[in-house]
Amino acid sequence: MIPGEPCSGPHWPRRITVLGATGSVGRATLDLVAEQKGRFEVEALTGGRRVRELAALARTFRPRFVALADPAGYAELRELLAGTGIEVAAGEEAVVEAAARPAELVMAAVVGVAGLRPTLAAVRRGALVALANKECLVSAGELFVREVETHDAVLLPVDSEHNAVFQALAGGGRRHLERIVLTASGGPFRTWSAEEMARATPEQALAHPSWRMGAKITVDSATLMNKGLEIIEAHHLFQLDEREIEVVVHPQSVIHGIALFTDGSMLAQMGPPDMRIPIAHALAWPSRLCTSVRRLDLLELGRLDFEPPDPARFPALRLAREALRAGDGAPTVLNAANEVAVAAFLEGRIGFRDIARLVEEALASALACAVPRDIEGVLALDAEARAFTRARIAAAAGSGAS
Amino acid sequence: MIPGEPCSGPHWPRRITVLGATGSVGRATLDLVAEQKGRFEVEALTGGRRVRELAALARTFRPRFVALADPAGYAELRELLAGTGIEVAAGEEAVVEAAARPAELVMAAVVGVAGLRPTLAAVRRGALVALANKECLVSAGELFVREVETHDAVLLPVDSEHNAVFQALAGGGRRHLERIVLTASGGPFRTWSAEEMARATPEQALAHPSWRMGAKITVDSATLMNKGLEIIEAHHLFQLDEREIEVVVHPQSVIHGIALFTDGSMLAQMGPPDMRIPIAHALAWPSRLCTSVRRLDLLELGRLDFEPPDPARFPALRLAREALRAGDGAPTVLNAANEVAVAAFLEGRIGFRDIARLVEEALASALACAVPRDIEGVLALDAEARAFTRARIAAAAGSGAS
Repeated sequence: MIPGEPCSGPHWPRRITVLGATGSVGRATLDLVAEQKGRFEVEALTGGRRVRELAALARTFRPRFVALADPAGYAELRELLAGTGIEVAAGEEAVVEAAARPAELVMAAVVGVAGLRPTLAAVRRGALVALANKECLVSAGELFVREVETHDAVLLPVDSEHNAVFQALAGGGRRHLERIVLTASGGPFRTWSAEEMARATPEQALAHPSWRMGAKITVDSATLMNKGLEIIEAHHLFQLDEREIEVVVHPQSVIHGIALFTDGSMLAQMGPPDMRIPIAHALAWPSRLCTSVRRLDLLELGRLDFEPPDPARFPALRLAREALRAGDGAPTVLNAANEVAVAAFLEGRIGFRDIARLVEEALASALACAVPRDIEGVLALDAEARAFTRARIAAAAGSGAS
Repeated sequence: MIPGEPCSGPHWPRRITVLGATGSVGRATLDLVAEQKGRFEVEALTGGRRVRELAALARTFRPRFVALADPAGYAELRELLAGTGIEVAAGEEAVVEAAARPAELVMAAVVGVAGLRPTLAAVRRGALVALANKECLVSAGELFVREVETHDAVLLPVDSEHNAVFQALAGGGRRHLERIVLTASGGPFRTWSAEEMARATPEQALAHPSWRMGAKITVDSATLMNKGLEIIEAHHLFQLDEREIEVVVHPQSVIHGIALFTDGSMLAQMGPPDMRIPIAHALAWPSRLCTSVRRLDLLELGRLDFEPPDPARFPALRLAREALRAGDGAPTVLNAANEVAVAAFLEGRIGFRDIARLVEEALASALACAVPRDIEGVLALDAEARAFTRARIAAAAGSGAS
């Protein structure tokens, strides 16, 4: 087997668009595209603010269209791509336009609520949507799923845990699914006491034992809020009740997710902690690529461990389950409050345990009872919840300083 | 979810025949049939010599036809089933006739080479063949697979390891398969020294740590010949080169088999060591049943271990790989010699390590170079290899006694 060699599949080359091309999932996607000679053509690439990186990617992958979310970078991007014949645009509407262009598959890897509108544009033209953005399912859950159904779009989960369950489901089908298991590495504080966790610094929270990821998601792994958000996503992706989604701490992070079927069989997807594996699966679905990623060696590992998450030290799991059960605006508020709190923690303005406390306060506020009617409503509620949490942080800092 | 409740599937009730109904796989199959009210109708049941057990099963499951392999039991069986309207027959041809009767699915669970001809009868009418007999693929490998292809039959592997790989393959397809892993419990002698193993008694060999099975297969688990035979089966089932079939010792026996795909993803099937799980999968394929079997609890288990098999203490794996590479009659001879040697060990006539030695001697004989042209040729070679090994055992006993 030669990496990069076409294995099969009738749809090659597949035309793709990458939203969030300069982020970690976007870059891993384009690494695979580069390795898979002749299998992909790039319709559009988008970035947030990293003008030079986006221009370099555009020069390599030759998309028809490039969009930068930050309008301030437009002139520089245009200059960097002068003479290439690549169409250049900037601003949030340009990113939405990139998603709306005719690509068979859209990798939706914009981070945060900024990903909602462009991902929805891809959904609305019935594309294959490789979903790496959490907010579409967490903040806009039911609204987003309704759009997917209305437009016959196909969601291909890219998050390693949901991708694992999606792969495992091929062996049985949704109607024979009894329960799923999402694994959690347990993060850097798995074996810490509650007292040690209370004093944890951003540097300690960012020292993830198995995965290399961005700062926000790495802190979410330390609080287990990442797994909480994944429970909400899994609920929407697989139409499962919250009680049918189990979380198991598995420090080696090689079993990513498990489907339990009604006949007692479990199918688990395994692999080294490398995002290129779920990305490759989504990119080629329903076929598979031949890639050069490192293969998992069970003998080298020797053992896999499983333990229950500690609800006392990791309240985020409970908060996410409560938000999911509450429904309405609660998951939107949970996500927004968490994002603001994590940013404040990374800036050294609050302690590690304050993250969950602030999320709990936001969920207890009237905001959580709001019922967003559309994506604009979700964005407005998201902004209100952020403002609420920022105000609580400022108030606490003020009272602390006085 | 209520066990026994129909989950889905358009082919219910499915008409099945169970060959080897009084053996452990046959009885587990009928346990499931009893639990799944209204989902299965039994066309035929066959047994070897256990007349009363077969009659009791026939009274419960009401097949149209019952066959006993041993002609001596015919009168008793007839008497026991008098007035039921069930057709009764005896003799090897009657078992073949049972397999040839119109059932959509045939559970081929006759043990040993006696299973060859009846299983082939089911294959030749293009049935779904749930294959629990090892000899079809080990002793008659290429001939058997050619018949399956010619008659468009479908093989549904029942052996837990092959069933696991078959389930995992649904997530990727054969053409994207790079390698498989078959797990081995390691048997009762996993941690014994070579010297301790040399003195092992039949009782010690029969104390399997995780699976409850018949005596022959339990001893094969202790020598790892069982895994060697499974390598040969997997080669034929999944068209894999011997080097693409890895064996990993996994003492907890909950991951049964793994498929590694060309994109680096692995899918593993897991479950408690309970034959009803793979049997249920085969019985309902491509749907799934709702069963009451115990679910696997990863938290209760806590950990899964993996280690390489020791080639010095377990030469059977190497012998099976050599027989597979040699091809022709070698796998037939391997299997026949092993069966005779295991029987002699269980009778206390030879030591534990003599089993592999006798198999090695048979493989080194001219018999292994024979090329059986058809099933009759396989049966003849099998008989010759048995006679050869019996003669070696007798000669050794004679020289030892002199």
